Parts: sequence; C-alpha cells; structure tokens
Amino acid sequence: MARIIECVPNFSEGRDKKIIEAIVAPLKNKPGFTLVSYEPDADYNRTVVTLIGEPEPILDALMPFVEAALQHIDMNHQSGEHPRMGAVDVIPFIPIEDVTMEECVAYANEIAKRIWDTCHIPSFLYAEAATKKNRVKLPTIRKGEFEGMKDKIKDPEWTPDYGTNEIHPTFGVIGIGARIPLIAYNIDLATENTKIASSISRAIRFSSGGFRHIQAGPVYLDSRQHVQVTMNILDYKKNPLYRILETVRMEARRYHVDVPSCELVGLIPKQALLDSLRYYLEAAGESFDKNMSFEDIVRYSKHYIGFRDFDQDKIIEANI
Amino acid sequence: MARIIECVPNFSEGRDKKIIEAIVAPLKNKPGFTLVSYEPDADYNRTVVTLIGEPEPILDALMPFVEAALQHIDMNHQSGEHPRMGAVDVIPFIPIEDVTMEECVAYANEIAKRIWDTCHIPSFLYAEAATKKNRVKLPTIRKGEFEGMKDKIKDPEWTPDYGTNEIHPTFGVIGIGARIPLIAYNIDLATENTKIASSISRAIRFSSGGFRHIQAGPVYLDSRQHVQVTMNILDYKKNPLYRILETVRMEARRYHVDVPSCELVGLIPKQALLDSLRYYLEAAGESFDKNMSFEDIVRYSKHYIGFRDFDQDKIIEANI
Repeated sequence: MARIIECVPNFSEGRDKKIIEAIVAPLKNKPGFTLVSYEPDADYNRTVVTLIGEPEPILDALMPFVEAALQHIDMNHQSGEHPRMGAVDVIPFIPIEDVTMEECVAYANEIAKRIWDTCHIPSFLYAEAATKKNRVKLPTIRKGEFEGMKDKIKDPEWTPDYGTNEIHPTFGVIGIGARIPLIAYNIDLATENTKIASSISRAIRFSSGGFRHIQAGPVYLDSRQHVQVTMNILDYKKNPLYRILETVRMEARRYHVDVPSCELVGLIPKQALLDSLRYYLEAAGESFDKNMSFEDIVRYSKHYIGFRDFDQDKIIEANI
Repeated sequence: MARIIECVPNFSEGRDKKIIEAIVAPLKNKPGFTLVSYEPDADYNRTVVTLIGEPEPILDALMPFVEAALQHIDMNHQSGEHPRMGAVDVIPFIPIEDVTMEECVAYANEIAKRIWDTCHIPSFLYAEAATKKNRVKLPTIRKGEFEGMKDKIKDPEWTPDYGTNEIHPTFGVIGIGARIPLIAYNIDLATENTKIASSISRAIRFSSGGFRHIQAGPVYLDSRQHVQVTMNILDYKKNPLYRILETVRMEARRYHVDVPSCELVGLIPKQALLDSLRYYLEAAGESFDKNMSFEDIVRYSKHYIGFRDFDQDKIIEANI
C-alpha cells in the first residue's frame, strides 16, 4: 500500500485567474500525487490547494509552486478578508495512510530548509512541527500579518525556524506545519448582520470560552450577500461537526435567523462525516451503517448537515 | 445601596453537630450580613457556610469563627472524603453588588493578615487573589493536604503569602481567595443509564474538549432512580446556563432520552438567570425585561430552564 499524505498549501491570490493558474501549474498532472482541488476565494483573496499522494513527489512539486508564487505575488500590494503573512501563507502536512506524524514533521523541516536555501524565504514551523510553545498555533505566529512581520521577525522571540531575522521583501514569510486533518467549515447565516455572526462565533470558539478545539470568526460574503461563521475544527473527534452546527442553530434562534446551509473549504475525513451522520440518523430513529457508500454519505450529508457545493471529491478517502 | 459580597468558608467538620454549632455560632444573627446556610456533609466531613452581606461585618465575624474552628478541630485526627489542608480549609470572597474584584482581593489579604497576626495560622492566596501563577487553582495549593503541608510549606516555592514556613500544628493552613460566583448545576436525564450521562458529560466539559469553563461528570441518584450530568460552571458569563442546557438536550436526542428538569446546589447570581431567560424569551419572540421581579424570574426559570426545588431563596440577590 502506498504511503499517503495530504498537503494543503494556501496562497494569497484569489482573484486573478491567470495568476492562480500560473501558480498551480507546477502541481498539475504529476506522477505520485493528485491535485485534488484549488479553490480561489475572491473575498478572502486566497486560494486553498489540496494535494493527496506520496510525500516525496509532493515535496518536489512544492518548490516550483513556491517559486511561481514568489514570481507573481507582491504582498506589499495584496489585501483580502483573510489574515496572511506570506505569498504562500501556510503549508501543512497531514498524515493519511502509512505515514506517521513524526514523518510529517520531518517533511515540514525538509521543505522549510529547501525554501530558505533556494528562495531565501524564512519560515516558522507550527502545530506538531512547532519548536516553541507559542508557535503551536498559527494565529499567534501570524499576528501582525505581512505588514507587522517586518518588525516582529526582529524580536529574538520570533526568530524564524529557517532563515534570518528579515522577511522576504515581496513574499513575506511562510508557516510550515504538520497536523491531524483539520476541517475548515463555514456555516451560512441568512442575514447581512455581521454582529450576529460575531456573537455566535464567540459562543462556540475556545478563545471566548467555547469549545476547546474551535477557532471561529464572523465574515461577510460580498458575493453572496450574507454572513458566515467561519471556523477551523482542530480536532473533529472531540468537537464533532454536528455539535458545532447544532450549537450555531441554537444560538441563531434568539436572532430569528435561519441557518440554511454550510460549506467545507478543502477536504474532510470520511470518519468526520460518519460521526455526525450517526448523530442525525440516531436522533431521527433511523439505522446507521458505518460501511455506507460514498454516495450515501454525500446524500445524507446534504440532507442532515445541509452542505452546499458538496460532492464525493470533498471526502479525503474518495481521492485515494 | 449597600455594598454586598458573598463569602463561602468551608471548615473540616461535617459530623459532630455540637462542634458544628459551636463553630458557626459567631456567624449567627449579626448585623450587616446573613448566614444564608451551613450544609454539613458527613461523608466529606466538611461544612460549607454561605454568608451574604456587607464586607466589613463579615470580615469581623470571620475572626471568632476561625478561632472557634482552631479551638474545636485538630487536623491530626481529622479524616473525610474531601481533600483539605486546614481546620477552616478555604475562605473565598465573591463580589456581588457595588464591590469590585480588586476590593475582594483586598479583603482576602486583610483577613489573611488578621488571621496570621491573631492566631499564627499561615495562608495561601488563590484564584483572583493569587500572587503566583501556580497558586491560582486551589487543588494545586492543596496537593499533599494537611499531612503533606508540613514539608511542602518549607519549599521556597510554597512560602505562604501570610505567615512563616511552618503550618499551625493543629489547624494547618488556609486558602483565602477572591473569585466570581461559580454555579453548581445538575441536569436530570430520564434514564438509569450512567453511560449516557457520562457520554453527555464528555460532550460539554473542558477536559474532554467541551466548553472552556465547564467541569462535569455523570452521577446516579439512588434516591430518585435516574442519572444526572452534574457540573460546575466556573464562568457563567462566558458559558451561560442556557447554552449548556441546550447542548445537553441536543446530545440527549440521539439517545431518545428526555431532559425533564434540573437543579442548583447552593445559590446563583440573578444575572446568570437573566442572561438565560433573555435567550429563551428572545427565541420565543417574547419581550425581555431586565428589571423583572424575583417572582417573574422564578416563574420564567421554572418554565424555560425547568428547575425543580427552586425558589427565590436560591438567588443570591434575594437574600440581601
């Protein structure tokens, strides 16, 4: 059986199609891994790329990808809704099959070294790859963003893990990490009122007293003209999707605001969907089959969880 | 308007009624504050006292109370289920009305000084009154209990905040603190299945990934023949009661188990009830009046939150 990782680089261009295509070009049609998707978001001005496959071919392809971003993006002229510190903002490695977390930490170190040696772009190691306690969480590293990083990186506390105390003048810095699969999950609210999304975000996110493994915030989607609670679920086993969705629905009741739909950014492990479908099917008094087909998972997920823009390709295991 | 605090001293005798009466006698029928209750627990061999009123009269009455405990309890011959380090084990001060947390910290310091000057009993300041990070949590201070404290207090790390590096030979040491009110809250489940209460406890409590300020566990009530999720809400502003109750109701749905009622142990701040009633009234499309009477608070709380054994005396402010 092949050794499989997921790698989800995010880069800071989500509007100009020509530039987006130029940056992802080195990741297309390569042996050993699949470019599962690249999802530009114009509001965020950011594209999330999902790669699944063998580690070594992915590492090799990441180099021309980073070089393309270096060539096409100048962070001094970039803005968008999503916080960011680099042209390629993050590169996380995620063990999927026959790969340990320790190996993913090693891959993070290897690509960080190559990027510094080749492009002189400094990087911070985060999550399981972190070398200091205050570098575990990406938002702590990214605080100040590209604009603030010029000074922050000179603080001895924030010496990068690879590179010297100076950001790359147009690229910035990268966060490179290893972690369990996180779920980037957004819940739509049928209102334009950002205060409501903000209040509900505070109810669920850890930093305001909510669930331990949830990072969340409000966002207004210009293109769709409604707000979202946008979140990362950092541990889907301890904070299952259904529990967060139902808590959001419960909080929305006081505002008489509907929760019509939700979406995933990137992929989701099959088990995360099964755990939540099990809740809804049991609550509905229906039988739950943990060996159900991908087709059934998709059908039930749309019905009970209310995903929009969702199909089988969103499930990690369906891409292997 | 009077300045009001709550003070909840715990002392290490819960069996001998004569001794208990002798120790609480200095707290009875005093001007300026009310002895709301004293609840001995024979298994714990401990009594929890609740005082509500003006700070200065409470501070004055605490001195003869501590002296009575010093006279009647010898910790060398005391044992019970509850961990303890002193004859009076803890004295927390809780701001209720027109008193700041900073003032409660000052009261903690003042009584600690008086107790040392008068009785030569050393004390550790905890919670908001803590002077070091590892003294914030009472269990960390109390670790080793009375028996271990003889040596622990000689460790420079554990020099008491008031007093010298020696415990009182029969009394031990006291933890004196300032904190916001905590709510001891139990939710009834219409089942005898402790596994269900256990699973729901894990969904809501911080230690298993749940809400940040919730400690919870399962318990089977022999006298009532059903299980409960029993919990402490450590910060009712960030983890309001309604949010926990609704999450428990949501989790119970998968087991098809009713959540018929709930109860408080000890008192609850009026604001904690108002915050939750506001949620339920807003969700129901009814108007919310933050100046509603105690009678209305009790009526709505029974209706929406489902309290049993609940009346006005459970509300801190109704005892003022």
